[in-house]
Amino acid sequence: MNSFGTLLRLTTFGESHGEAIGGVLDGYPSGIVIDEEFVRAEMQRRRPGQSAVTTSRNEADEVHFLSGVFEGRSTGTPIAFVIYNTNNRSGDYGNLRTAYRPSHADYVYDMKYGVRDHRGGGRSSARETAVRVCAGALAKLALQQSGISVQAYTSQVGNIVLEKPYTAYNLALTESNVVRCPDSGKAAEMEQLILSVKRDGDTVGGVVTCVVKGVPVGLGEPLYNKLSASLASAMLSINAVKGFDYGNGFEAAYGRGSQQNDIFYNNNGKIATRTNNSGGIQGGISNGNDIYFRVAFKPVATILVEQPTVTSAGDETVLQARGRHDPCVVPRAVPVVEAMAALVVLDHYMMQRARRISEKE
Amino acid sequence: MNSFGTLLRLTTFGESHGEAIGGVLDGYPSGIVIDEEFVRAEMQRRRPGQSAVTTSRNEADEVHFLSGVFEGRSTGTPIAFVIYNTNNRSGDYGNLRTAYRPSHADYVYDMKYGVRDHRGGGRSSARETAVRVCAGALAKLALQQSGISVQAYTSQVGNIVLEKPYTAYNLALTESNVVRCPDSGKAAEMEQLILSVKRDGDTVGGVVTCVVKGVPVGLGEPLYNKLSASLASAMLSINAVKGFDYGNGFEAAYGRGSQQNDIFYNNNGKIATRTNNSGGIQGGISNGNDIYFRVAFKPVATILVEQPTVTSAGDETVLQARGRHDPCVVPRAVPVVEAMAALVVLDHYMMQRARRISEKE
Amino acid sequence: MNSFGTLLRLTTFGESHGEAIGGVLDGYPSGIVIDEEFVRAEMQRRRPGQSAVTTSRNEADEVHFLSGVFEGRSTGTPIAFVIYNTNNRSGDYGNLRTAYRPSHADYVYDMKYGVRDHRGGGRSSARETAVRVCAGALAKLALQQSGISVQAYTSQVGNIVLEKPYTAYNLALTESNVVRCPDSGKAAEMEQLILSVKRDGDTVGGVVTCVVKGVPVGLGEPLYNKLSASLASAMLSINAVKGFDYGNGFEAAYGRGSQQNDIFYNNNGKIATRTNNSGGIQGGISNGNDIYFRVAFKPVATILVEQPTVTSAGDETVLQARGRHDPCVVPRAVPVVEAMAALVVLDHYMMQRARRISEKE
Amino acid sequence: MNSFGTLLRLTTFGESHGEAIGGVLDGYPSGIVIDEEFVRAEMQRRRPGQSAVTTSRNEADEVHFLSGVFEGRSTGTPIAFVIYNTNNRSGDYGNLRTAYRPSHADYVYDMKYGVRDHRGGGRSSARETAVRVCAGALAKLALQQSGISVQAYTSQVGNIVLEKPYTAYNLALTESNVVRCPDSGKAAEMEQLILSVKRDGDTVGGVVTCVVKGVPVGLGEPLYNKLSASLASAMLSINAVKGFDYGNGFEAAYGRGSQQNDIFYNNNGKIATRTNNSGGIQGGISNGNDIYFRVAFKPVATILVEQPTVTSAGDETVLQARGRHDPCVVPRAVPVVEAMAALVVLDHYMMQRARRISEKE
Repeated sequence: MNSFGTLLRLTTFGESHGEAIGGVLDGYPSGIVIDEEFVRAEMQRRRPGQSAVTTSRNEADEVHFLSGVFEGRSTGTPIAFVIYNTNNRSGDYGNLRTAYRPSHADYVYDMKYGVRDHRGGGRSSARETAVRVCAGALAKLALQQSGISVQAYTSQVGNIVLEKPYTAYNLALTESNVVRCPDSGKAAEMEQLILSVKRDGDTVGGVVTCVVKGVPVGLGEPLYNKLSASLASAMLSINAVKGFDYGNGFEAAYGRGSQQNDIFYNNNGKIATRTNNSGGIQGGISNGNDIYFRVAFKPVATILVEQPTVTSAGDETVLQARGRHDPCVVPRAVPVVEAMAALVVLDHYMMQRARRISEKE
Repeated sequence: MNSFGTLLRLTTFGESHGEAIGGVLDGYPSGIVIDEEFVRAEMQRRRPGQSAVTTSRNEADEVHFLSGVFEGRSTGTPIAFVIYNTNNRSGDYGNLRTAYRPSHADYVYDMKYGVRDHRGGGRSSARETAVRVCAGALAKLALQQSGISVQAYTSQVGNIVLEKPYTAYNLALTESNVVRCPDSGKAAEMEQLILSVKRDGDTVGGVVTCVVKGVPVGLGEPLYNKLSASLASAMLSINAVKGFDYGNGFEAAYGRGSQQNDIFYNNNGKIATRTNNSGGIQGGISNGNDIYFRVAFKPVATILVEQPTVTSAGDETVLQARGRHDPCVVPRAVPVVEAMAALVVLDHYMMQRARRISEKE
Repeated sequence: MNSFGTLLRLTTFGESHGEAIGGVLDGYPSGIVIDEEFVRAEMQRRRPGQSAVTTSRNEADEVHFLSGVFEGRSTGTPIAFVIYNTNNRSGDYGNLRTAYRPSHADYVYDMKYGVRDHRGGGRSSARETAVRVCAGALAKLALQQSGISVQAYTSQVGNIVLEKPYTAYNLALTESNVVRCPDSGKAAEMEQLILSVKRDGDTVGGVVTCVVKGVPVGLGEPLYNKLSASLASAMLSINAVKGFDYGNGFEAAYGRGSQQNDIFYNNNGKIATRTNNSGGIQGGISNGNDIYFRVAFKPVATILVEQPTVTSAGDETVLQARGRHDPCVVPRAVPVVEAMAALVVLDHYMMQRARRISEKE
Repeated sequence: MNSFGTLLRLTTFGESHGEAIGGVLDGYPSGIVIDEEFVRAEMQRRRPGQSAVTTSRNEADEVHFLSGVFEGRSTGTPIAFVIYNTNNRSGDYGNLRTAYRPSHADYVYDMKYGVRDHRGGGRSSARETAVRVCAGALAKLALQQSGISVQAYTSQVGNIVLEKPYTAYNLALTESNVVRCPDSGKAAEMEQLILSVKRDGDTVGGVVTCVVKGVPVGLGEPLYNKLSASLASAMLSINAVKGFDYGNGFEAAYGRGSQQNDIFYNNNGKIATRTNNSGGIQGGISNGNDIYFRVAFKPVATILVEQPTVTSAGDETVLQARGRHDPCVVPRAVPVVEAMAALVVLDHYMMQRARRISEKE
C-alpha cells in the first residue's frame, strides 16, 4: 500500500513523469499554524538541481495545498497537496520501455503488475520523496510545539566517514555546505569525491545519521510497533536504503553488557543515564535521551556508462542511461530522513496521548 | 499494539511470569496440514536451557492449540495457542519491583503505563519470542507448499565474525553445534567466547544472518510496505535488536554503482542477474533471487555483576541481578529471526495473490 | 479478520465445540481496576441456560485471565482470556458434517475455506459472543471512570413491540424479567410468545434498543469511521443481526426537515437541543446528547422441525436439528449489544484524546 | 480517519468551498482499462443541478486523474484524482461562521477540532460524495470483469413507498426519471412530493434500495468484517444516512424461523435456495444469491425557513439558510450508495483471493 502511519497517516501518489505527485496527510492535529514559508524551505533542501553534486533536473517543487488548512491553521481534516511535474523530458526514457535497468525496479514492477509507466522510473522514482518532505515539514511544525526537533546530516560518502558520535559535531553547521556534513573538512572531501564520481558517469553510496531531541519518555508500542521498529520501517521505505541501526547499532554486536549498559543515576532529582548506547530507545520505547540512528544508502543505480542488460522479451542488450541523475543521493536524502522521522515521532506522540485515559495532564 | 502483519496477523500476549504467554494467528490459509511435530521441533530450537551457552531456566515450552485446527488441518479461522509458564521463580525478582535495571525496559514501562508487572521483565521479556517461533513454524508449513524456505544462522558473536557471504557456507551444518554457526571452526570459538563471558557474569552481542530461498518475483508493496521495510520492522521488533541491513547493506555505502549493480542476463531463457548485491529485493519488491539480511543483537542487559542504578523513587542503589539469563542471545535468536521472516513473507505472498484479479493462474 | 477496533482492539478465537473460546483485548488503558465480580455478572447475563426462554445448554462460562492484569489493575499490555467449552455434546452434530442447515453459515464456510469444523456451527456459532461480553465488561469499567454508561433492552419480540421512545421507560427495570424488557406488561407477553414458539420447535426474531449516556461531544471520525458507522459495523458483526438504525432511523425517511431538525438553545449557559432525533450523533460525531440505536435480530435459524436441505455432495435430504438452541436470541443479545457499544465508544474516546495535541486538559 | 477499505483503500480529502475535493484509490488492480467516459457518466448521475428536484448549485464535477493510469490502463499504483470546486458562493455562508445550523455538524466540528471551515459545511458537506462516485466507478469497471453488477434505486420518498421486493421491478427503468425510481407511477408521485416540499422551503427523507448481482460464494470475513458489517459501515458513512438493513432486515424481527429460513435444494446440479430472505449473505459471507439492502436517509437539515439556534458564544439567534440545497437527497444518493457497495465488494473480492493459497484457480 502507499500509506504510512497509524493515527497520523500519509498516503502518497504520483509517478515521476505523470501530471503530478502529491499526498494526503490524515489525522494531523487541528489548530496548528501552517508556516508555508517553512514548508517551502524544507522543499528547497530536497529539490533537484540545487547544487553541482545533485541531478541537473530542475524542478521548482512548489507545493499546492488543496484542503485541510483554513485561514492559516490546520482544521484536523485531511491536508492534501500536489506538486506538479514541470520539467519532464520523457523522451529521455524511450529506450527504457523494454530494457531493464540493472538494480532498478523496472523488472519487478513488470512482473508484479504486468503493466508499468516506464518514464523516469514511474512510481518507483525517488521523486516521490518530495511528498514525504512536505508532510514531514508539517509534522515538524506540530512537534515544535512540544519541543521536539529532528536533525539529520551526511555522515559518510563512499569511504569518507565521520568517525565520531554526533555529539562531537556542531550540527548547526550541517546546512553550511552542499553535502550537508557538519565537519567542514570532511564535507570538502565528500564534495570532491562526488564530483569525481560524477565525472566518471558513476555514482557512490553513503550514510545519513539522524538525531531527534526532546522526545518525552514513553513513546513507542512495546512489541510490534516499537519506536525503533517504526523508524526502521520508515527508513527502509526510502529509495536506495539498504540498512538501519540505532544507538550503537551494529557495533553493539562486538561488545559486552558490562561495557554497554546505560547506567542510571539521579541527576539533580531527575532520572538520567551516564551513557546513551541505547540511542534513546529502550525495549522499543523512548527513554527521554536523544534518539539517534543511521541509514545506509547504496550508490544510485542509474549510471551514465554502458551496462549490459536484457529486455522484457529476454533479449540481451546494452543500455546507456540518458537523463539527469544524482551522482550521490545522500545530500538530498538528509531532509527525507528527517521527514520520515518526524512523521513517525508525531504519530507515536499522538498514540501515547490516547493510552492513559485516567490521567489528567 | 501487540499485533503484526496485514492479511496474516499475529497477536501475542503474556508476561514472563504470568500464567501463560500465547498468540492468535489470524488469516492463516485454510487446508494446511498442521505438523505438530515440526512445531515442537522449532520450539526446541528456541527453548531455554537447551545447552550450556543458554540460560538455565528450564521451560518445556509446550504449545497448546485452542482453535483453528480441525482434524489436523487449518480451518482458516484464528489459530490460538498458549504456552504455560511453568518454571517461574518470581522470588528472584523481588528487588526489581522498584530498582530499574540498566538498559532494560523497566523504567520506560513505568513511565509509559504507570503500572508494571516487574517479575522477569513482565511483558518486555524475550520470553514472548516463543510465541513468534510457534507462529513462524505455522508460516513455514504454509510456505513449504510453495517451495519457499527460511534459514538463519549465527554469523557473529562478539569479535568472532563469519567474513564470507552466506553462499560460502553449508547452511545444513547450522544445527550441528550449540551456537548455530555453519562454520565449525568459528562455532567452537564462539562457544568458548560465550562460556568465558558467562564465567565473568557478563554477556556478549552478535549477529544473525538469514536467507530466504524460493520467493517468487513480485512480493512487496512499492512504497511503504516494501518487503525490505516489513522485514526491518519485523526484525527490529525482536528484543535486543539494534540494526538490520539486507543485501550488501551498510557495505553498499562504500561502493560505486558501476561495481554494485546487479547486471541482468538471459540464463537459458530466464531473466537472471550476475550478482545479488540487492539481496533479492529491488525497489522493495522481491526479484526472484535469494533474499538475505543481517540482524544485529546487543549483549543481554542483565549481567550478574553489580551495577549502580536508581529506584523508581529516584534513590541511587546497587543492583545485582539474580535469576537465570543468557550470556548471549544469538544462538536462541536464530529461530526467532526465521520465524519473523516466515511470517513476513507469507503475509506478502497472500497480499500479492489479491492484486492481479484479472489474471488467471 | 477476527479483530475489531482501532486503538482498542479485540481479537477473538475459538469454535463452539473446540477446547476453548477466548480473546485478546489490546490497547486497553493501564491502571484500571479490574473488577472480576462485575465481569462475572456480565457473563451471567449472556450465559446459556439462564432461564426457560433460552437454550438449555448449560455453560458456566467462567473467564480465565491469562495476561495484562497485575495486582488487580490493568497494565496496558494485552489482556488475554479464555473460556473453556465444558458442556460439549458434539454427538448432537454428527448429521451436520455434510448436511447444510438452512439459513446457517455451513454452506458458505465450506465454499470459503474448503474445510470446516461442523460441530455446533464451529466458528460461526453465537457462542463467540461470550468473548465480546467479557471484553465489553472491561470496556465498561474504563468508561465508568469518565461517567459513560451503556444500557440496552429488548424492545421487540415478534409482533410485540415497545412503541414509545426509550425515555418513556424506566430502564432500571430491564433486568427484572427474563426477556430484559423494561415494560413489565410487554415483558410478560414476550415471555409467553417465546415459550409458545419454543413449544412449536420454532424460533422468533426481535429488536434490541441501546442507550449510551454521558458521551462527551466530539467522538467519532468525520467520514469513514463516523461513530454511527462504527456502531453499525459492530452491531452487524453480531450473529443473526439484520439491521441497524440510530436516532429516529428508518422513521426519518418519512419526515420533513422542519419537523425533525434538533433545534439548539441555550440551556443555562450550555448549548443544548430541544429534541434528539439525531440520536446523539451529528455528522458522525457525538453531540453530547444520549446516543440511542436499534438492532434487528432474525429468528434463530436452527429449528426443531424437519426442513428439506442438501448435502455437500448436492444430494437432497431432510434435516431435523437436535442440540440445544434458543427459541429467541434477543434476551441474551442485550448484553452483547451493550458490549459492542462499549468497545466502540471507548475506542473512539481514546482516539479523540490523541487528536488535539495542542490542548492541555 | 478519512480512509475506507482494507486492500482496496479510498482516502478522500477536500472541503465544500476549498480549492478542490479529491481522492486516492490505493490497491486498485493493475491492467484494468479505465473507461473515462463511464466515469464521467457516473459523475453526471450525482452532479448537482441535474434536475428540478436537486440543488441548483451547478458544478461540472469534472474529474482530473493525476496518477495511476498509463496509456489507458491502471498500473496498480495509487489512482489520485481531483475535482475542482468551481461554483463557490462562499458569501452565502458568512452568517454560518458562528451560528450553528440545527441538525448539522457545525457544532460538533467546533467542539471536536476547535477550528472549522464553515463555508458550505466544509468537510462535512455531502459534496465529498462526488469523490466516492468516482472511485466507485473505477470499482465497477473492475467488478464488471468478474460479472458483478451493482444497481440501486429510490424505493421511498417521504410516505411514498415501493412496497414490493426489488424482484418485482424492472430496474432498467431506474434512470428513466429524475427521482431514479423503477416504478413510473410512484416516480411521478415522488417527484411531485419533492417539488411541493421544495416550494415550502422544506426537505424530505427517503430510502435507497441496492442490489448486487453476480457475487461469488465466499466473500466476507466471518466475524468482524462480515460482508454485511462492511456494507453497513460503508452506508452509514454517507451523509444523512440513519439506518441500514439487508435481506428482510427489520421485518425479520417479526417472523419465525420456520417461515424465514432459506431452504436449500439441488437446482440442476447446483446448490440453490428457494427464497432469499437472507439477502445473499449468510453468517456474514456471500452465498451466491443476489445481495440486497436498504439505506434510510433523513431529510436534509438545511431548510429555507427560519429556525431558532445559538451561536458559538451561546447566544440565541434565528437562522435562515441561504445557499442552494437539495429538497431531497435520495435521487442523487442512488449513485453514491452504488459506489460504496462497489468499493466494498471489490475489496472483499480481492481479500478472498488471498485466502486459499493452496488452491489453483
